Amino acid sequence: MKSHSIKELLSSNLSLQEVTINGWVKTFRSNRFIALNDGSTINNIQCVVDFENFDEALLKKVSTGAAVKISGTLVESQGRGQSVEIQVKELVVLGVSDPDTYPIQPKKHSLEFLREKAHLRVRTNTFAAVMRVRSTLSFAVHRYFQNNGFYNVHTPIITGSDAEGAGEMFRVSTLDQKKPPLNDAGEIDFKQDFFGKETNLTVSGQLEAETYAMALGKVYTFGPTFRAENSNTSRHLAEFWMIEPEVAFNDLDANMDLAEDFIKDVINYILEHCAEDLKFLEQRLIDEEKSKPQAERSDMPLIEKLKFVAENNFKRVSYTEAIDILKSSTPNKKKKFKYIIEEWGADLQSEHERFLVEKHFKCPVILFDYPAKIKAFYMRLNDDGKTVRAMDILFPGIGEIVGGSQREERLDVLLEKIKELGIDEEELWWYLDLRKFGTAVHSGFGLGFERLVLFATGMGNIRDVIPFPRTPQNAEF
Amino acid sequence: MKSHSIKELLSSNLSLQEVTINGWVKTFRSNRFIALNDGSTINNIQCVVDFENFDEALLKKVSTGAAVKISGTLVESQGRGQSVEIQVKELVVLGVSDPDTYPIQPKKHSLEFLREKAHLRVRTNTFAAVMRVRSTLSFAVHRYFQNNGFYNVHTPIITGSDAEGAGEMFRVSTLDQKKPPLNDAGEIDFKQDFFGKETNLTVSGQLEAETYAMALGKVYTFGPTFRAENSNTSRHLAEFWMIEPEVAFNDLDANMDLAEDFIKDVINYILEHCAEDLKFLEQRLIDEEKSKPQAERSDMPLIEKLKFVAENNFKRVSYTEAIDILKSSTPNKKKKFKYIIEEWGADLQSEHERFLVEKHFKCPVILFDYPAKIKAFYMRLNDDGKTVRAMDILFPGIGEIVGGSQREERLDVLLEKIKELGIDEEELWWYLDLRKFGTAVHSGFGLGFERLVLFATGMGNIRDVIPFPRTPQNAEF
Repeated sequence: MKSHSIKELLSSNLSLQEVTINGWVKTFRSNRFIALNDGSTINNIQCVVDFENFDEALLKKVSTGAAVKISGTLVESQGRGQSVEIQVKELVVLGVSDPDTYPIQPKKHSLEFLREKAHLRVRTNTFAAVMRVRSTLSFAVHRYFQNNGFYNVHTPIITGSDAEGAGEMFRVSTLDQKKPPLNDAGEIDFKQDFFGKETNLTVSGQLEAETYAMALGKVYTFGPTFRAENSNTSRHLAEFWMIEPEVAFNDLDANMDLAEDFIKDVINYILEHCAEDLKFLEQRLIDEEKSKPQAERSDMPLIEKLKFVAENNFKRVSYTEAIDILKSSTPNKKKKFKYIIEEWGADLQSEHERFLVEKHFKCPVILFDYPAKIKAFYMRLNDDGKTVRAMDILFPGIGEIVGGSQREERLDVLLEKIKELGIDEEELWWYLDLRKFGTAVHSGFGLGFERLVLFATGMGNIRDVIPFPRTPQNAEF
Repeated sequence: MKSHSIKELLSSNLSLQEVTINGWVKTFRSNRFIALNDGSTINNIQCVVDFENFDEALLKKVSTGAAVKISGTLVESQGRGQSVEIQVKELVVLGVSDPDTYPIQPKKHSLEFLREKAHLRVRTNTFAAVMRVRSTLSFAVHRYFQNNGFYNVHTPIITGSDAEGAGEMFRVSTLDQKKPPLNDAGEIDFKQDFFGKETNLTVSGQLEAETYAMALGKVYTFGPTFRAENSNTSRHLAEFWMIEPEVAFNDLDANMDLAEDFIKDVINYILEHCAEDLKFLEQRLIDEEKSKPQAERSDMPLIEKLKFVAENNFKRVSYTEAIDILKSSTPNKKKKFKYIIEEWGADLQSEHERFLVEKHFKCPVILFDYPAKIKAFYMRLNDDGKTVRAMDILFPGIGEIVGGSQREERLDVLLEKIKELGIDEEELWWYLDLRKFGTAVHSGFGLGFERLVLFATGMGNIRDVIPFPRTPQNAEF
């Protein structure tokens, strides 16, 4: 007999039919009620066992975490909280789960404890819900771009280019690590390395994506990127997934429109497709915050917050306006900020971004036209000669979720900038070719996928929204 | 005025309206006809310039590769081969393209030449078509799984686990490469490395995907994987994208059903959504094969071949049957094979797989139940004690496109196998936990995405179906 998923059964009209399901035992109460889950939904199906008809030794094996196969009749439920249940006719224990050693017991485990059990934590309601939302969100990303005429580009992970300058890189090599070959100059002979040159893990696919945008028009990447930075925070990972659209002929305004429309669309998509998981995660957050002082609790329940972002315009503010707001703000005047904003040109710290988003505007904010000095070489210089067409999107509770810009399309301006920063022009020959042959205005942005998942799920630590987090001193599994 | 994509205009009813488009000049004939392309489609739109109304110096800049913005009236075309054209009113050259130095001229370039220009080759019809098909195929992959209740899992790229055994690995490190720190034993002190242990780039996400399948039921990965093997062939890359579904409660038969259904579905999807690009690629292949002897040409035109695969059952043959067929085959008897098949247990070489698929069965073939000795440790042992529940799918012209298996779910059998092979049990503690707690039958497979793109586009070299190929001695861009 074909087996069904629990999600199918709970939303079906199969009542009074014979069904077969497989799953894992969540709980087994009163030697009679098995709450069974197969991962297809947050909801369990109740399976009612008439214990007099089953061997006691068999029922002993029905413990939390055991895999079972159940056949029986789907009937309307007698109990509260569920529409249907299964009257069990056949019960097979496929794999036991010793209650004395199985770490995932039906009680509250700390998120820290579960991080040590990353291979099992997805068996908890919280992580299963987070990972289902993550999966749906990742599909929403592809769906949005593909429906809007973008082409997905797989930019390289191993790169011989080190000019991106977005952060510290991991080296990739097959050379003997203990005794690497040296050349005549006494330096490591990378000609003997696998790729015949020094290679690293990419920090961004942007530069390569630009080459594709200048041919296919609208493209996006969605792949892993890496930072070898010793940042042990709740917002940083050494390995994370990034989404980078790049669009020929888009200026910065169109770029901001795209980013805002994109974020709203994917949030609406999960509101529609993950209603039950989001409801569970909303309640989880409420429970978690009960022990916190009122001032540290979320302003809105999770789903309301997601709807708020999906339905309201992001506030667009120039860097210059933002500096004025910050300079005259109470925490700046009362020296409550760790970094006091003294003058135009200052780099904004997390505390400033949070003030703008959470205290001042109370909504997502797009900051644009930053000082050239604090931004990357490829961003387009404004006519004022001192700001560039950069934009960051700041989210409540998350901080920077998007960083983007209009790219410098003018060869002479770009060359001058590269010289100024001492970047090797030879390294960027192919990037400069884009400005030599058919150059045009173009823009793009990068969105850290895990930060979006953090926001969407209400989780507090980025290590809890990716299956197997990579952080300093941690690459287990 | 809102600008349109060329794809929109060519399929629209906007005739007699004023439109604005941006794109790159493909050709400019008779100082009058600009063939413009913006990457949205293989088709160009013809823009008709009344040269008497435009400055000669401006028109001089309209050369192949130049970026232009054109406004004008969309009218029914007078010429053959196109439905609509634009009568140009305004013409702005956004970026010139010097005909003396621009490498991508409107003539035939060799694929080898274009590989050196990987940042520009997507401006050719061939590569633009290949990359659009690749993008659509990648979406078809996500769409298939998400529509069928699978959850996408991002398994780690950097891995501390080296037990997968699927091939040579790239080391990832931030240690000083010239003078790595040594421990008391004189060995490299990986405790001082970024992750506190030796780490590599993943060769497969399977083992981690299994941990998620044993909680969420049906999962899939779609991400980059790596092989540090010195294979300079037209079918191998050092960095490639792999799709790995993993399903709890699926046995090998269900696994074969899934793989076949999946491949047919994504091929049908591109047949429906990439008709024009496929038509172009079909003609390209016919042109390319004209110079080849009849025996080396494709049996079927590209689209017919794709339809054939989508519409016909794959032939399922056990390894044992395949050996019998091969042993009694003409090339084996006449010693035409490089490796003569002498007896059961032999590993099949590419020549044998090609014989089975291209000469004997003339259709995709699924081989199953391989000798345990030539397959991986995690595959489920059959009751005969000598074969495992493995399956490979072989495609005409491509060879192995899928490798999968039912996984060994029995702790004792798995432990014995691990000992037999000398694999470090400690390394696999988390993988073994899956067999201790709620174990169940489960299966999955890996599909090399680039091989699928090769098959779908009719291209001959795997370097030509990924934007920036990584191969021995090559990590440019």
